Amino acid sequence: MDIVIPLFKLYEPLDAIGPYELLANLPEAKVRFVAPEPGRVTDVLRSLHVEVPTRFSEVESCDVLLVPGGAGARLMLNNTEFIDWVRRIHETTRFTTSVCTGALILGQAGLLKGLTATTHWMAMDDLETFGATYTAERVVRHDKILTSAGVSAGIDLALQLCALLSDEFTARAIQLFTEYDPQPPFDSGSLATATPEVVARARELAAG
Amino acid sequence: MDIVIPLFKLYEPLDAIGPYELLANLPEAKVRFVAPEPGRVTDVLRSLHVEVPTRFSEVESCDVLLVPGGAGARLMLNNTEFIDWVRRIHETTRFTTSVCTGALILGQAGLLKGLTATTHWMAMDDLETFGATYTAERVVRHDKILTSAGVSAGIDLALQLCALLSDEFTARAIQLFTEYDPQPPFDSGSLATATPEVVARARELAAG
Repeated sequence: MDIVIPLFKLYEPLDAIGPYELLANLPEAKVRFVAPEPGRVTDVLRSLHVEVPTRFSEVESCDVLLVPGGAGARLMLNNTEFIDWVRRIHETTRFTTSVCTGALILGQAGLLKGLTATTHWMAMDDLETFGATYTAERVVRHDKILTSAGVSAGIDLALQLCALLSDEFTARAIQLFTEYDPQPPFDSGSLATATPEVVARARELAAG
Repeated sequence: MDIVIPLFKLYEPLDAIGPYELLANLPEAKVRFVAPEPGRVTDVLRSLHVEVPTRFSEVESCDVLLVPGGAGARLMLNNTEFIDWVRRIHETTRFTTSVCTGALILGQAGLLKGLTATTHWMAMDDLETFGATYTAERVVRHDKILTSAGVSAGIDLALQLCALLSDEFTARAIQLFTEYDPQPPFDSGSLATATPEVVARARELAAG
């Protein structure tokens, strides 16, 4: 089972590594990171330098494509060769998936036209420019396309994917192995629960 | 604000990267990864090769030490120079913290003697060999020492740390930025909720 996760300059680290942790624990799964060029790829938070041995164009098919987000995802929208590759790989996948603003990349590839989909809450308007309708759900599935909300939502997506790729029993075992019994100490994880002041502060933090 | 996360061969990726995502979003925080030797460090799932520029011994003090777990954490228990460094750095920190079996490293350094603490549920007996009492909580705090449960529990730990290092308002903004509004599709994330069959399967998966 071949799972491919593109990384690119300024990717959001948890978008990629949350799902990687769960999916790579699936028996017989092989996760490969790919990048615009082989070599070192640095995340948006600037401390996580990942050595990626494979150029995306070396991959011609896979079972699962999982596209993370981050500031770098917006830059990748202009990389025609990458967007064409996403569109082509999608024809070979069992599941084509995104976390956070990775959905914009699926949108740019034309995969979300006429569908409901989700992304980071700050990118809801951008998502709709690709003909998708933003919906404030954690994970949105249309057949083999799954989009998830911002950053940490990739973990919920991945657990659902584990069940789709294997079975619910194995997915539950991976949930237990990763002790995914979340207990956030605060309740500001979504626009529905955060106060306007917290929303404004989050926008400030994101703007750096 | 200087936050240090040791990586070592066979570290568990989400243990380290979950907290990194939240903590590096704190204004004025600088997260540094350190390793037994500068260079490439590969995780326990074998696909995430991180370039770490700094040897742990180059760091003489920090505000936060966060020790991840994974199969490699057990191997580090025999690295006397590393364990001595943890003990020495602990004297300089505002918070000394662990995720998953990273608690065994704090235990080996003598920091958990006589305390309640938590770790990955599979390591509860190992933790007690260091004079700690395992407790099945998500995060356990004693003054400046915080231990958290397995793998994904580091995210809850980090959100609590964000509030301690900054303030609850900022922590909530980081929760919203990372859309940490978890909605696991299954309820097998802890020993308290998983069936005996799921527990057995998780042990099998962990044994590879």
